[in-house]
Amino acid sequence: MSLITLIDFPPLGDGRGSLVALESHQSIPFDIKRVYYIFGTQKGVSRGFHAHKQLKQVAVCVTGACRMVLDNGQQRESVWLDSATKGILIEDMVWREIHDFTDDCVLLVLASEHYDEADYIRDYEEFLKQ
Amino acid sequence: MSLITLIDFPPLGDGRGSLVALESHQSIPFDIKRVYYIFGTQKGVSRGFHAHKQLKQVAVCVTGACRMVLDNGQQRESVWLDSATKGILIEDMVWREIHDFTDDCVLLVLASEHYDEADYIRDYEEFLKQ
Repeated sequence: MSLITLIDFPPLGDGRGSLVALESHQSIPFDIKRVYYIFGTQKGVSRGFHAHKQLKQVAVCVTGACRMVLDNGQQRESVWLDSATKGILIEDMVWREIHDFTDDCVLLVLASEHYDEADYIRDYEEFLKQ
Repeated sequence: MSLITLIDFPPLGDGRGSLVALESHQSIPFDIKRVYYIFGTQKGVSRGFHAHKQLKQVAVCVTGACRMVLDNGQQRESVWLDSATKGILIEDMVWREIHDFTDDCVLLVLASEHYDEADYIRDYEEFLKQ
């Protein structure tokens, strides 16, 4: 089974331009407690390198692109996020790394819980033991 | 009293780049039921031109810029949304228009309720009567 669960967000486009809507408990399979966006990522920088014990997230590049790596300790898979209409679901207990940000990348992430440092696993060896 | 309530979103920046986090019931004064983003807006197109009976929203340009006009029937005010760290709170029963989208504008909006066509007032004369 693939670690990569993509979610298609059909754009509500018309002659004016595009609009993508994400609804909690509909296309987004949880309550949206927190929204964050990553931008202005410096050249050569990768981010992530952690897992969450409980948190679930959906990530989408609203502009630009980046490469998401997911790893459950047995499998490691990679996918380009390169469309404002393509999200990825990141389950709990999945190690994630984000590489190859384009200069214009804005990575939008919706999260199922508020920020909680205690929910992070930041050490890969520790992650493998859990 | 100004119609314009800006919310400052301090970036959690470091040597890697920037991250802005929006938390429901903290910097965002409601449950986030719906998230949408507007992009690829065609040149010369304005959007909005409606009010909501109940819905509250927070809007921020995560890249690019646009000009938000708010109108409560007595006052009409305009503000540029031109920073990923500057949001605007749009209360219920406020007419909004969005003008002057830059080509690269991605306008992110967090909403307090799911989509409900019955909550829209799309006619300005009707809005003035309420």
